[in-house]
Amino acid sequence: MSTEPLFKRLALIGFGLIGGSIARAARAQGLAGEIVATARSPATRARVQELGIVDRVVATNAEAVKDADLVILSIPVGACGPVAEEIAQHLKPGAIVSDVGSVKGMVLRDMAAHLPKTVHFIPAHPVAGTEHSGPDSGFAELFINRWCILTPPEGTNPAAVETLRAFWAALGAKVEIMTPDHHDLVLAITSHLPHLIAYTIVGTADELEEVTSSEVIKFSAGGFRDFTRIAASDPTMWRDVFLNNKEAVLEMLGTFNEDLSKLTRAIRRNDGEALFEHFTRTRAIRRGIVEIGQDSAAADFGRPVAKKAE
Amino acid sequence: MSTEPLFKRLALIGFGLIGGSIARAARAQGLAGEIVATARSPATRARVQELGIVDRVVATNAEAVKDADLVILSIPVGACGPVAEEIAQHLKPGAIVSDVGSVKGMVLRDMAAHLPKTVHFIPAHPVAGTEHSGPDSGFAELFINRWCILTPPEGTNPAAVETLRAFWAALGAKVEIMTPDHHDLVLAITSHLPHLIAYTIVGTADELEEVTSSEVIKFSAGGFRDFTRIAASDPTMWRDVFLNNKEAVLEMLGTFNEDLSKLTRAIRRNDGEALFEHFTRTRAIRRGIVEIGQDSAAADFGRPVAKKAE
Repeated sequence: MSTEPLFKRLALIGFGLIGGSIARAARAQGLAGEIVATARSPATRARVQELGIVDRVVATNAEAVKDADLVILSIPVGACGPVAEEIAQHLKPGAIVSDVGSVKGMVLRDMAAHLPKTVHFIPAHPVAGTEHSGPDSGFAELFINRWCILTPPEGTNPAAVETLRAFWAALGAKVEIMTPDHHDLVLAITSHLPHLIAYTIVGTADELEEVTSSEVIKFSAGGFRDFTRIAASDPTMWRDVFLNNKEAVLEMLGTFNEDLSKLTRAIRRNDGEALFEHFTRTRAIRRGIVEIGQDSAAADFGRPVAKKAE
Repeated sequence: MSTEPLFKRLALIGFGLIGGSIARAARAQGLAGEIVATARSPATRARVQELGIVDRVVATNAEAVKDADLVILSIPVGACGPVAEEIAQHLKPGAIVSDVGSVKGMVLRDMAAHLPKTVHFIPAHPVAGTEHSGPDSGFAELFINRWCILTPPEGTNPAAVETLRAFWAALGAKVEIMTPDHHDLVLAITSHLPHLIAYTIVGTADELEEVTSSEVIKFSAGGFRDFTRIAASDPTMWRDVFLNNKEAVLEMLGTFNEDLSKLTRAIRRNDGEALFEHFTRTRAIRRGIVEIGQDSAAADFGRPVAKKAE
């Protein structure tokens, strides 16, 4: 690219799956004149240095945000408030400060309480990820064709919102703007509840007396293995999600429990018609997801097919 | 192969994902001198004829089993009893009669009631599949590195069991023998409960008032889309599974509900420690599944990564 980068300096706080993917994608697209990164653990910082995908690795959050035009926190949502407090007085006036947290209402309140009025605070959430974590897990293509939701507080400078939108669009994402509360409801059903359910059933399988763990593992191709991917997600990140989006998660859980009771009753009463009707209806949602390119149409997510050893 | 095929004539009743995969794999491995297939619907029979992957397509189950040395029913478990009744008097003495149903106790009782003592009845269940169905959905590699569980009734001829084991091993499967009741418990947790949960949550998402279906579809990459694959499975097959493995499913559901209550309580009480502990424990099962090759180690099941349009 011969054009000016969108930002002279991009500061990344946190370098897990999301932070690392932003770094790789921003570099690939030439979106920042300089990328400065930091992470809480010395081991992660050393690894980022080794990977050579950012311009500078620094030891503190204060140092990282110095003179940065865009600051992105890619850390568990529970840590966002304290880090905002820590960086507040070191931020460059006019900088855009954002995050990537899976919860928006709580994080917005936690961070806004500390940030100075001289910066543009625009929370963001790229709805993308894998079950892997750590500095090596990121990749430049993670956000392509995925949605990134921005939840700018009322009165946010529209030009700053446009700049952040342009940044995410350049990473490959489609950008949507909504209120923090609506975001938290939407994500409660499309992400948080699925994770809670997956974590539950994998735990259940692990503790059975009549069926051994070894049997669960061997015969997991009957459906169970799909749940284990999600239940292998980062524990700290997910603990914080549930603690910070409690109300919406509990609300969705209530509806889920009612629906599960209905299906359970149908099984108990041998109501094949009710089961058949329900199982037919759920196929349409899958079709919708595949049609708009949010999942692969290939069988089994396109999982590699085994070859027979001769 | 220059050696004799395992069976002179293989009869396949039903030609969906499993029946069609058996046909393709058996042909690829040269396991039968002749493969005869039938299906209930004329459209399926016409399509199988067109595909040209079996030697003969016939219109009735009675005709299909004539002179066959191995007969496999690949039909919804609820249909197995009636079909056994229909074919009983047409079976060749000494033939092996098997099925591929996801439930064994009930199917065994339903079929055994009709089959003559002159045949070897050995129920089987290959733990493999995709969300697709119909005559075009099968493929020869489906059973490779997957388990196939045999549940021979007491007193079954050991030589016949060995022959069926050799057949499945030749299709690429690892074969395990267990009692029908234990099979039904194991599958209740590794397959039936995961399907019930997935069908439930996809239905829940579809009926919300505060979140639109279009939002559910757009933001599904946060985890939800994984569930929609399973909830797109064949409705008839799954209706029959739940009606025929009721007790084991209800038992597992009871344990699941207790565990979900525990996690819900932890969220309600802000017990981050309990959540973190649980989320850490579930990672080990995923590792076990990947280690024995029952799932891909690649992020996101190895889903194709999007490329950025320029």
